[in-house]
Amino acid sequence: MNTALMDRETLDFLLYDFLDVESLCARPRYQEHSKDTFRAIMDTAERMAADYFSPHAHEADEHEPRLVNGKVEMIPQVGAAIEAFASAGFLAAVHDAEMGGLQLPVSVSQACFALFRSANTPTSAYLFLTAANANLIKAYGSDEQKRRYLPALLSGKWLGTMALTEANAGSSVPDLRSTATPLGNGCYSMRGTKIFISGGDHELSENIVHLMLARLPDAPQGARGLSLFIVPKHRVRPDGTPGEHNDVSLSGLIHKMGYRGTTSTILSFGENGACVGELIGEPNRGLQCMFHMMNEARIGVGMGSAVLGYMGYRHALEYARTRTQGRHPDQADFSLPQVPIIEHADVKRMLLASKAYVEGGVALCLAGARLADDARTAPEETGRRDAGMLLGLLTPIIKSWPSQFCLEANNLAIQVLGGYGYTRDYPVERLYRDNRLNALHEGTHGIQGIDLLGRKAGADEGHAMRLLGQRISSTIDRAKNCGRQSLCAHAAQLEREWSELGHTTDVLTCELKRDRRKALANASIYLETAGRTVVAWIWLEQALAALRAAERSARGMAFVSGKIAACDWYFKCELPRNAAQHALLRRLDGTAMDMRAEWF
Amino acid sequence: MNTALMDRETLDFLLYDFLDVESLCARPRYQEHSKDTFRAIMDTAERMAADYFSPHAHEADEHEPRLVNGKVEMIPQVGAAIEAFASAGFLAAVHDAEMGGLQLPVSVSQACFALFRSANTPTSAYLFLTAANANLIKAYGSDEQKRRYLPALLSGKWLGTMALTEANAGSSVPDLRSTATPLGNGCYSMRGTKIFISGGDHELSENIVHLMLARLPDAPQGARGLSLFIVPKHRVRPDGTPGEHNDVSLSGLIHKMGYRGTTSTILSFGENGACVGELIGEPNRGLQCMFHMMNEARIGVGMGSAVLGYMGYRHALEYARTRTQGRHPDQADFSLPQVPIIEHADVKRMLLASKAYVEGGVALCLAGARLADDARTAPEETGRRDAGMLLGLLTPIIKSWPSQFCLEANNLAIQVLGGYGYTRDYPVERLYRDNRLNALHEGTHGIQGIDLLGRKAGADEGHAMRLLGQRISSTIDRAKNCGRQSLCAHAAQLEREWSELGHTTDVLTCELKRDRRKALANASIYLETAGRTVVAWIWLEQALAALRAAERSARGMAFVSGKIAACDWYFKCELPRNAAQHALLRRLDGTAMDMRAEWF
Repeated sequence: MNTALMDRETLDFLLYDFLDVESLCARPRYQEHSKDTFRAIMDTAERMAADYFSPHAHEADEHEPRLVNGKVEMIPQVGAAIEAFASAGFLAAVHDAEMGGLQLPVSVSQACFALFRSANTPTSAYLFLTAANANLIKAYGSDEQKRRYLPALLSGKWLGTMALTEANAGSSVPDLRSTATPLGNGCYSMRGTKIFISGGDHELSENIVHLMLARLPDAPQGARGLSLFIVPKHRVRPDGTPGEHNDVSLSGLIHKMGYRGTTSTILSFGENGACVGELIGEPNRGLQCMFHMMNEARIGVGMGSAVLGYMGYRHALEYARTRTQGRHPDQADFSLPQVPIIEHADVKRMLLASKAYVEGGVALCLAGARLADDARTAPEETGRRDAGMLLGLLTPIIKSWPSQFCLEANNLAIQVLGGYGYTRDYPVERLYRDNRLNALHEGTHGIQGIDLLGRKAGADEGHAMRLLGQRISSTIDRAKNCGRQSLCAHAAQLEREWSELGHTTDVLTCELKRDRRKALANASIYLETAGRTVVAWIWLEQALAALRAAERSARGMAFVSGKIAACDWYFKCELPRNAAQHALLRRLDGTAMDMRAEWF
Repeated sequence: MNTALMDRETLDFLLYDFLDVESLCARPRYQEHSKDTFRAIMDTAERMAADYFSPHAHEADEHEPRLVNGKVEMIPQVGAAIEAFASAGFLAAVHDAEMGGLQLPVSVSQACFALFRSANTPTSAYLFLTAANANLIKAYGSDEQKRRYLPALLSGKWLGTMALTEANAGSSVPDLRSTATPLGNGCYSMRGTKIFISGGDHELSENIVHLMLARLPDAPQGARGLSLFIVPKHRVRPDGTPGEHNDVSLSGLIHKMGYRGTTSTILSFGENGACVGELIGEPNRGLQCMFHMMNEARIGVGMGSAVLGYMGYRHALEYARTRTQGRHPDQADFSLPQVPIIEHADVKRMLLASKAYVEGGVALCLAGARLADDARTAPEETGRRDAGMLLGLLTPIIKSWPSQFCLEANNLAIQVLGGYGYTRDYPVERLYRDNRLNALHEGTHGIQGIDLLGRKAGADEGHAMRLLGQRISSTIDRAKNCGRQSLCAHAAQLEREWSELGHTTDVLTCELKRDRRKALANASIYLETAGRTVVAWIWLEQALAALRAAERSARGMAFVSGKIAACDWYFKCELPRNAAQHALLRRLDGTAMDMRAEWF
């Protein structure tokens, strides 16, 4: 078993059987594509991830970037990987062919990216940040800005960041204090210190393009006074080459638990009053622009988390199949050979739970990417609008559910390997450490919970929730008529669960109008409960897709039986955990909220 | 707030209000002690932990032991800490005064040790291993062995290990292969390779005393053919000083996720046929002797885990009280100052859950230590026997519950600190990494689950479970009559939960006789469910103890309110998670067991 990369059949199943991405080729934007071109691109991604990304994953963790004479030093393989990725055109995966892009659907590009993430998440982070940065400039930049920055970014000659967080305002974006003062020539003098800026400084590219949130003079307080600026590390000369240093200085590297291959930096902008930025988008609308990047980043975080969990599962599976240890509890004869630990019920339980989490997580994120495709290219306007609303509703779940449960798969992978899993000779502890970041960056669980319950679930009188309900109902109907008793039972269970979630949502959105603080007090638990329900739907869809694939002989029996078994486990052992949470949420439990700081 | 050590008031409350250790002073063994001597010893421990252990905790993690010219090199502060601890007599904390011991109750000594663990778990591990090693030699050694080894071990001149695990037999002790061949002079020639031996090699002491499991020639297969041997690193000369090298060689250091300050080693015994060991205890009874050490080690693991979780909670609490960030969800005025994050409901929820886990965990382990005191010194023989049985039943829970839920407190501590918690500038990620070991060593959750369900719960027709039931009933009766409505409600809930657990236990122990493999398939879930119920009992007892202390004005109102609130949270938000697990266990769910290896 190849444990260096994500399993290709899992991705192919999701793309072709679960999401039917082939049907996208009927849309004008993708008419040059076919299953063959998708496959060829995935083949390239697979080869490149194996050749350039996977081999240095361990070394990058053991030798994190260091500051030497004011410059960031790192192992050279990172630069080689970035060059290979960029030269194959993956940075422009979703961009127009006329701009040199591959013009891929988001779903297919995310599947490609999953291969790179699986090989080496920290190295690929530089690239995904750059791609997201370029996407934002493409969406909001002036023609001049696009001309100046996009070719360099999409070719990987320059890399990009998002410079959002400040030390005094981690989760509280409205409190950002960096400033931008007009210079009179259409440019701005930037000042401020940003922290936790991934890829914020390095010698991997001749320039680094920061997208920085800052305040114009006299801007309103709060988030509505934030504007977005393009601030390169080196100023750009008229001929497009990087010129003098733009007074963006590295104040320090941050040393992290994991994700060590990605530099995380503290950056000072304009310490000498010589940092120049360009406004991108409308003044005071910076956060909306940033959210364009951030929503994409949040799907990326979910996918990254699911893939890291998946890799933990994959290593645990390989270990459990080959490591022999002990015998069955009813075998007292010690002359019998020891059995592979995958035969032990408790190990099977951990692996099956992991399979349900990670394959559920990857499917959830790719389903989100498919909604992004529909939001962009569905034939009807209502189809595009509905897909966009549904994706907005699901984004906090896509960000959070894998960050919690696929991380649990990493935890279980350590447990399956036992003492060996705790050593740095095996990758499972590194994968855990890498994944632990995902519950924190791009908005913690707490922030996502408030987004889901406070902004999304009740919006437009629950329109997005109704759209989700329609999709779920359709799955339930198909499952009830699929002729397979276990799936029929799961369909009935999902129907009840969805109705429970609706009831709980009503109680909470009603309370939102009365006492917002109280209604949001358990928003994180609501997020987890809603996520668990949504992933049940995803699993039922996967089981149905597996049966369809079996009918067409597209997948083997072992593969299909595995999907059905993971779906069974999810419905029997995971979904029932919701009941206690619904009860807690509906009684508007105030135990935590009523706790006083001085009682701790 | 002092975050370097565990909070003393928490320990004092547990010792004096919750466990009434003062009453032990009426027993002959402890009659020289009083609350004053206990306090004085705790004061010394506190001072010493702060001066010698806490200051190098971070540095020991960043600079793990290295192999340099065949010797293990580590930061010098470790040696200084060990010397200080030993010279204060803590290695002989529970030993007889006539041997130079402090003759402390186990419960008081565990509270002392908790202070050292809280300051620096990896450094203190060398000491607890040595203490356990000495305890075993005291229990099973010949007079000559005691004379030869105990004074050196108890003074810290020599340190000790337990050399159990081999690469081919991690959890499967019956498959150990090391051998011991009689030399004719009463000694044995030892051969074998041991792995994951903590403290297995270093330059901290002039000798290292390994307790090694190995097989005599013609010994029966399985665990019944294991004997225990004392194998020093250097042979002991007749005058008691360490002599020539005993052919125990270091094959390698193991590099771990955390717990980095403690060397973990691969040791080769007898590579040159010159490794000499002495049998300790009866031939082929080595595992029973080892279990004497291991049961103590398992309480130690539980306590270590609870303390590491506690320290994560304590750092998170300090951070949450001082870090300001954002405003309440119903406050849209950004000119208002940001609030300390402890005011946010979601942060309070994480802190309250952590408090319930870690204070529940520490209380559980100290209650176990108190049972060890009763097993040794209760006035009546039945009291001693019952306490021993109860401790045996609770040991797998004491080992596992904190390793799971106090580890979750470490996870929550990272979450409370957000991005900062993920950096190595704050200790919370290190505490997580250190604690992750505890679910693995001294028997994984899987092993503990089989111990609880397969060996303990049904033994003697459920005698130990009935003893536990009597204790729980007594708590329930007192809570129902305590005059506080919430505790009265919790008592009724615990009564139902205990009856649910009894029902589930009956179903499973009945199935054990029919189909052992099936009955044990979900033993880990049984372990978690039983643990959750037991800790509910511990919390109800803690709440009652807090009320008693308040009546006597021994504790302030904030302290008492905090205990009541954590108890409330546990009953309202944690205990209800059992319902789904009881349903799964009672239907003998076979989803995981029926999964086939080839379907993954």
